[in-house]
Amino acid sequence: MERKEFRDLATPEEARAAIDSLSLEGGLERVSLENARGRVLAARLDAELDVPGFDRASLDGYALRARDTFGADEADPARLAVVGEVHAGEEPDVALEEGQAVEISTGAVMPDGADAMVPVERTDIDGEGDDVLVRTSVAPGDNVMFAGADVAAGERALGPGTQITPRDIGLLSALGIDEIPVRAPPKVGIVSTGDELVRPGEDLHSDRGEIYDVNSYTIAAGVEDAGGEAVLYPHAGDEQDEMERILREAAEECDLVLSSGSTSASAVDVIYRVIEEQGELLLHGVSVKPGKPMLVGRLQDSAYVGLPGYPVSAMMVFRTFVAPAIREAAGVPEPRAATVTGAMAREERYAEGRTRLMPVGLIEDSNGETLVYPVDKGSGATTSLAEADGVVEVGPETDYLEEGESVTVRLFSPDVRPPTLLGVGEDDPTLNGLLDGLENPRYLSVGTRPGLRRLREGVPDVAVAAGPLDRTVDAEELGRWSREWGLVTQAGNPKEVEDLADLVERDLRFVNRTSDSGLRSSLEAALSDLATDRDASARDLREAIDGFDLGLRAHESPARKVIAGEADVALGLRETADRLDLGFVPVGEQSVRVLANPDRTGKESVRELAAALEGEFGTESDE
Amino acid sequence: MERKEFRDLATPEEARAAIDSLSLEGGLERVSLENARGRVLAARLDAELDVPGFDRASLDGYALRARDTFGADEADPARLAVVGEVHAGEEPDVALEEGQAVEISTGAVMPDGADAMVPVERTDIDGEGDDVLVRTSVAPGDNVMFAGADVAAGERALGPGTQITPRDIGLLSALGIDEIPVRAPPKVGIVSTGDELVRPGEDLHSDRGEIYDVNSYTIAAGVEDAGGEAVLYPHAGDEQDEMERILREAAEECDLVLSSGSTSASAVDVIYRVIEEQGELLLHGVSVKPGKPMLVGRLQDSAYVGLPGYPVSAMMVFRTFVAPAIREAAGVPEPRAATVTGAMAREERYAEGRTRLMPVGLIEDSNGETLVYPVDKGSGATTSLAEADGVVEVGPETDYLEEGESVTVRLFSPDVRPPTLLGVGEDDPTLNGLLDGLENPRYLSVGTRPGLRRLREGVPDVAVAAGPLDRTVDAEELGRWSREWGLVTQAGNPKEVEDLADLVERDLRFVNRTSDSGLRSSLEAALSDLATDRDASARDLREAIDGFDLGLRAHESPARKVIAGEADVALGLRETADRLDLGFVPVGEQSVRVLANPDRTGKESVRELAAALEGEFGTESDE
Repeated sequence: MERKEFRDLATPEEARAAIDSLSLEGGLERVSLENARGRVLAARLDAELDVPGFDRASLDGYALRARDTFGADEADPARLAVVGEVHAGEEPDVALEEGQAVEISTGAVMPDGADAMVPVERTDIDGEGDDVLVRTSVAPGDNVMFAGADVAAGERALGPGTQITPRDIGLLSALGIDEIPVRAPPKVGIVSTGDELVRPGEDLHSDRGEIYDVNSYTIAAGVEDAGGEAVLYPHAGDEQDEMERILREAAEECDLVLSSGSTSASAVDVIYRVIEEQGELLLHGVSVKPGKPMLVGRLQDSAYVGLPGYPVSAMMVFRTFVAPAIREAAGVPEPRAATVTGAMAREERYAEGRTRLMPVGLIEDSNGETLVYPVDKGSGATTSLAEADGVVEVGPETDYLEEGESVTVRLFSPDVRPPTLLGVGEDDPTLNGLLDGLENPRYLSVGTRPGLRRLREGVPDVAVAAGPLDRTVDAEELGRWSREWGLVTQAGNPKEVEDLADLVERDLRFVNRTSDSGLRSSLEAALSDLATDRDASARDLREAIDGFDLGLRAHESPARKVIAGEADVALGLRETADRLDLGFVPVGEQSVRVLANPDRTGKESVRELAAALEGEFGTESDE
Repeated sequence: MERKEFRDLATPEEARAAIDSLSLEGGLERVSLENARGRVLAARLDAELDVPGFDRASLDGYALRARDTFGADEADPARLAVVGEVHAGEEPDVALEEGQAVEISTGAVMPDGADAMVPVERTDIDGEGDDVLVRTSVAPGDNVMFAGADVAAGERALGPGTQITPRDIGLLSALGIDEIPVRAPPKVGIVSTGDELVRPGEDLHSDRGEIYDVNSYTIAAGVEDAGGEAVLYPHAGDEQDEMERILREAAEECDLVLSSGSTSASAVDVIYRVIEEQGELLLHGVSVKPGKPMLVGRLQDSAYVGLPGYPVSAMMVFRTFVAPAIREAAGVPEPRAATVTGAMAREERYAEGRTRLMPVGLIEDSNGETLVYPVDKGSGATTSLAEADGVVEVGPETDYLEEGESVTVRLFSPDVRPPTLLGVGEDDPTLNGLLDGLENPRYLSVGTRPGLRRLREGVPDVAVAAGPLDRTVDAEELGRWSREWGLVTQAGNPKEVEDLADLVERDLRFVNRTSDSGLRSSLEAALSDLATDRDASARDLREAIDGFDLGLRAHESPARKVIAGEADVALGLRETADRLDLGFVPVGEQSVRVLANPDRTGKESVRELAAALEGEFGTESDE
């Protein structure tokens, strides 16, 4: 068996056409009215009865003959004999003659002989109670809803393809319909492959390179967002027979099979073989980034799409090519108003000759203009999507986007609410609590230095900086607090670490933070002081520390290395040590400052953050 | 016990404030990742681990020491000894020394000693297979994703109040989280009252004024649209003890109780009594139309809102006042982009001194401008909502809206797609089939005469006219077909009706169509011909027919009176008689013409309808 040759990558249009050529339809099913909301009607429904089914009083009052009220008014009422009453839900037991009236409730059946009614407010009961005085004149039909006036038998009630709203449910209820034929959602089987994948909730062994399976649940949620029914298959390892068995089982049970993560050569071989034997491969590789390694074909009677393994690539290919086809098969229209126009917050270069699907975040400047910034942490990073609001499609002929250039962003869904506040900088537990009190903030904990750099570039609203501050930052300080930092040890400090000097002098395995972090800056400053005291070079002290160069990104990561027994001492906060029940040797205090972009101090969310800071720590914007 | 006095109607703002003062929150619950989509996070989630948990190769290739590649290029590659291999999901069993490389797969753990990797495309295996030639130089960290680079332990992952998207599910998966704390949807009990109500699916006795219960299912769907959980209680009649029992049960089990349909005085009394004894009434009556009779209060520990009984009033009050409170309690934000601006298609007068919630339909003119027209069939009519797209709120100080005036329409939901084609006129089975082939049409079967009138007023795109045509209509005929009309009888024509003359001469109970219908026009024309033949007056002939004045609205309604035994002969179509297995005596043929608004013939949907007509019947636009 030889692999088919797909020498050239397909264009995005060819990929769409290949998927459109597949049939994903899920067939029909019947659902009860209670479960009809959001479903798509499979056939036209005509009214089988008149609504209302009888001539109906619209108000409480008196049914009568309109001609008996001719000329009546406040001053000269018509006197009619009350010959009975009809309530809602009752069959009238009287018929009206000339000069007579029947008391009637809202919604009740108009008695024979009556052709109009008058509301009780325009009448008086005569002293004896047997007569009513009508103080207005009415025309035939007044205050009566005739049979079929709402819906008439034989009328087209709802057309095929209608997505059922609460209002349609009202109409169906009125027609007495308690079950409707709807399109069954296309059944989409999801097969993630790779020996390194572990299902969330299970134990993870990072030492042997295990990672949690991201694609299965993410793609399943995407399938459901698009109106499909997701079926998760057991996670297939790279073992060939097992993978083949799962693919065949999925193809038998589903309208579409999606695989992802088959990056190893042996996995690709299995998929090729199964498709060649039991179906047809239509397309291999598409000229988009991320997402190049995409397969489209047929597997038995099912459609098949192979998604790339990296989560971002998988989701981008899914959203761009697969979700529209699922929507089409489900009969769920593409959401309206899911695009936003904004200005590029900074220049973006790109020249690879294929269409780029660029995840972007959105933030409003102080004039309410939408700024668009690329979010790219690599296609292996799940946060590339979680920190983005939508996608800008950049054509293969575009080499770069200028700062300020207008771009169209397709939001991930029409309900996406871009963040009200964009913050960047140091990771800090106190900050996390402050953010909880704000409406929909986004915070990127990139560290103090990169945070300040981004603030200078003008994209974020605020930056959070810890430790010694670079004085050249042009920003307005909104508030600050201080935090205690030092050395985190095993619980109870079994190695009896006493101070920073121990790190230099003793044989302790240390874990540092990266030089992006304010904690690292404070550590380096303390080491310089120690060097001065000892008349030594700071560089020598640093080199004497085992693990000084092992810098981790987040404030808790070093402490977790201590828990794992991979280090004796970690750089960290007292707050972290307390939370994780570890020992702590204090070394110093550092300020954490919240610095606002000077152009954004008028923004409501920035003012709210300033107020929250003032409420928590008081004002102390002088240093 | 006395009723509290609520002499003045509350303003809409007061009604909102009263509902805001109630607590509808549903508490917390935990859901699995598979069921997390769309749920609202109840608490912040921080990362408990680094993602990835190890330094990870980003590509297939060779792990190595960056410094060993210094100066290497295509012409002068670096030669390294291959000392092992690492696949994804494996723990490396080698460590690298200077001058060595390890073959590595995408996603695998970087072995100790390696600080970078080079993709396989930039290498060649040396003839022997033990060495690799590296044809590029790399820097430390190149093609490696460091531990924690995606998410770092301790980082704020998702804030409280986040509505979970597929992308958030990706992030949660990456963190290994398989269960999250979410807000429980507020539980909303729905109690419809009224002796006349019958649940859809059950038999309906129109003779005693029964109607199907519209509010229960409609409000339930609205509750779910707003993020609540609807609980339908057994339908309460007007019997006081039963109603009280159901209200108390609902209050015990739910966060909010909604009742509707308690229009009878005794029902209102029960509700007043239960609320006075077990809660508090905050508000009675609000100054909006439709919807005036609204109650707000507390019932035991539950919130309570009494909705009006008429479906349109109930839905309007629900949408305007209750749905936002449910959304707030569910933590589901009000949908963005749910408003549209358009121009009034015609003048609308209104002067009642209270806020009007006016259901409107939308249609585009040929320039793509949105026209807005009121849909008002009375608040008893379910089609007032089903035929509308949204609501215009008209303040109490506004007496009228001018034609062309710009208004803001709040759509019923952000997914509302206004119809592509608006048609009005005669009801016809052939037409219904044609409409099925179009994308999202709306057709109002108001009859031929009102249809032509509306076409002249300029709102609809097309009108459909049957029978003798008023020649003054300024319209372009898109196509036509002909239909056979006559007398519909019991199956097998037991009364041996032979022709129109029988109606005049014999003692037959007849059911007519209203004078709006083209069928009625053809009948009148045929009777005039008969009168001419007989040298009689048409009026005398009409008066000789028993039931001539009993005109029903839709083309099937008269035939159904024959089925019900209430009439011997009905005016109708052969198509209807055939479908309902009834007898049919042909009287004549009439043309059904589809006439386009001359300003809209360029509209895509109108052209599509014209093409469908031509495909079905050919072109014959001459008469």
